Amino acid sequence: MQEALPKFGYRLIARDGAARLGEIATPRGIVRTPAFMPVGTGATVKALYPEQVRDAGADIVLANTYHLMLRPGAERIARLGGLHAFMRWDGPILTDSGGFQVMSLGKLRQVSEDGVRFQSHVDGSPHMLTPERAVEIQCLLGADIQMQLDECIELPAERAQAERAMELSLRWAARSQATFAKLAKPGQALFAIVQGATDAELRRRSAEALVAMDFPGYAVGGLAVGEGHEVMLRTLEGVVPLLPKEKPRYLMGVGTPLDLIESVARGIDMSDCVLPTRNGRHGLAFTWAGRLNLRNACHAEDPAPLDPASSCPAARDYSRAYLHHLVKSGEYLGSMLLSWANTAFYQELMAAMREAIAQERFAAWAEETKRRLAALQDA
Amino acid sequence: MQEALPKFGYRLIARDGAARLGEIATPRGIVRTPAFMPVGTGATVKALYPEQVRDAGADIVLANTYHLMLRPGAERIARLGGLHAFMRWDGPILTDSGGFQVMSLGKLRQVSEDGVRFQSHVDGSPHMLTPERAVEIQCLLGADIQMQLDECIELPAERAQAERAMELSLRWAARSQATFAKLAKPGQALFAIVQGATDAELRRRSAEALVAMDFPGYAVGGLAVGEGHEVMLRTLEGVVPLLPKEKPRYLMGVGTPLDLIESVARGIDMSDCVLPTRNGRHGLAFTWAGRLNLRNACHAEDPAPLDPASSCPAARDYSRAYLHHLVKSGEYLGSMLLSWANTAFYQELMAAMREAIAQERFAAWAEETKRRLAALQDA
Repeated sequence: MQEALPKFGYRLIARDGAARLGEIATPRGIVRTPAFMPVGTGATVKALYPEQVRDAGADIVLANTYHLMLRPGAERIARLGGLHAFMRWDGPILTDSGGFQVMSLGKLRQVSEDGVRFQSHVDGSPHMLTPERAVEIQCLLGADIQMQLDECIELPAERAQAERAMELSLRWAARSQATFAKLAKPGQALFAIVQGATDAELRRRSAEALVAMDFPGYAVGGLAVGEGHEVMLRTLEGVVPLLPKEKPRYLMGVGTPLDLIESVARGIDMSDCVLPTRNGRHGLAFTWAGRLNLRNACHAEDPAPLDPASSCPAARDYSRAYLHHLVKSGEYLGSMLLSWANTAFYQELMAAMREAIAQERFAAWAEETKRRLAALQDA
Repeated sequence: MQEALPKFGYRLIARDGAARLGEIATPRGIVRTPAFMPVGTGATVKALYPEQVRDAGADIVLANTYHLMLRPGAERIARLGGLHAFMRWDGPILTDSGGFQVMSLGKLRQVSEDGVRFQSHVDGSPHMLTPERAVEIQCLLGADIQMQLDECIELPAERAQAERAMELSLRWAARSQATFAKLAKPGQALFAIVQGATDAELRRRSAEALVAMDFPGYAVGGLAVGEGHEVMLRTLEGVVPLLPKEKPRYLMGVGTPLDLIESVARGIDMSDCVLPTRNGRHGLAFTWAGRLNLRNACHAEDPAPLDPASSCPAARDYSRAYLHHLVKSGEYLGSMLLSWANTAFYQELMAAMREAIAQERFAAWAEETKRRLAALQDA
């Protein structure tokens, strides 16, 4: 009797308006959607132990191809048994293609039909990232969900430039798909990325071409790069209806709690962002009452925790006075506790969204939650 | 019926040569001796959660009066319920007097009969630390074991300067004792500090005078400040026999695993040092096979953990290859894991010493362990 090969799949459980409750099945476990993926840039979600990420409620983490190809190197991670073993995360991992970071961090970059040539921001060494190499790296890492290489441009951009980059990304999608078909293991999935800046027509052409290529999942890329919240939402409203209902939809690199609520309301299933950990390292805490700046003197003698109702020890057991002291003193523990509390808050937020969708009260929940979250603005 | 007041006390359980197995009773619990106290300078053992410090086997931690008086301030900590609640450590806490850090960190310091005037290294604000104020601060913090203010001088020093500082420290000991008698709670203890640089005669005069004043415990101060390992041990050999057998003996600010073995062999019961956490932040790991430098390329593809037999997850569950990557990348998790592993190693070392003394094989254990620890030198 032959054992069934592990399969990737998306299951839609419930809808409430455009918001979707679902599950992504991977060989390494289920991802409950809508899902927020903590970012483990360099094979570590900054300042957290992997057990804390899991216990916070995360089903999946993201890692960055650009960072890992430069340090410690994809072949080295493969020799060490792959990224899951290396970083001690046995759940699903999504890797990006490296394209976005090449644009934001790489030096002397040159885009050609073949790919992107650039110099490492770590040591200046020369590198070439092609659609084929990006997939090869992600297969060496052993990523469960992989992303095609795309060309990310800065916004605002000329339409001609946005069109050229979108068309190039389409050709790279086909090359990525061909390489993935050769290298990937059963159950791994390659997602395509819809590009086209903020131009509805370009976005439509990108989405239709990619849907015709039949990827197992679709990302919306090139947003949250300076276009503004409203423009981002209008672009999403144009793109998401073009994507297949039976596939997961991933909004890349977004965002604030408000961004997450609004994008889920528009049918997004997955997102990722460095905000919870980066803000944690900068002394900012996300709570159900809004965002707190622990540097502020008003917290110096406050014995209350961030959130007595949280199941996260960092939010529940440590006083704001102590957090204020740690942040002001530049202590590691301040960054550790706030990154942990923020990571847990983001997962609480997603769990609340999933529950609201299941109970068909997402719109009312979203209105009330947006009011709550607006109460404090860096108090 | 009147409830018995909490009491401080030392109980000698066994001796093996000069090495002692014992217990210090405090209102907040027992300290098994010989004990190593992790250093929580600014109300946090750097890069560790308090639960990790406890689980590593530590019964007691040290906090620095100098740092806490400047930030967040002793009165603030008192208003917040004391240092134990503030830093979430419910076991015993020992605080130093601030004297040592005033000398090493304070600016424009002036020593007079009254005390030490200095400027904060944080914000330049002027402060005066007297023997009375040092005790008052430690009582505001709620420290279980407190230290008298002493004058710490740099070594090498002229004999006349060492004698003057030792005599001044004796007068400060008497003033500290008088203030402590007024301010302390039942069960708290104030330790005296034997000074006298590396001069045997000065050390003897200091010890005899302090013993006559009947403190509940005695520290040996002013060592491990550049005099060298052998001179430190000779000084200890002169001082320890002068101290009462029924009181605990504390060697301040020492040291390496070798220092700890040699000082316990000479009758020391307690010590503290920043080495485990500071070295951890610098990529160095203490193990039973010696000290490793995780920056070294030889670890880059080593899948072995620091110590598969350790009960500490940081030492047992993470590969050296991953630690190498984290350290080279400057990731928080590298400092977190190595500080944790080193803190656990120091506690394992003390537990092994206590077991060896109980089994009357300390000398043989020490010889074998010193050989083991010398095998690797920053490999």
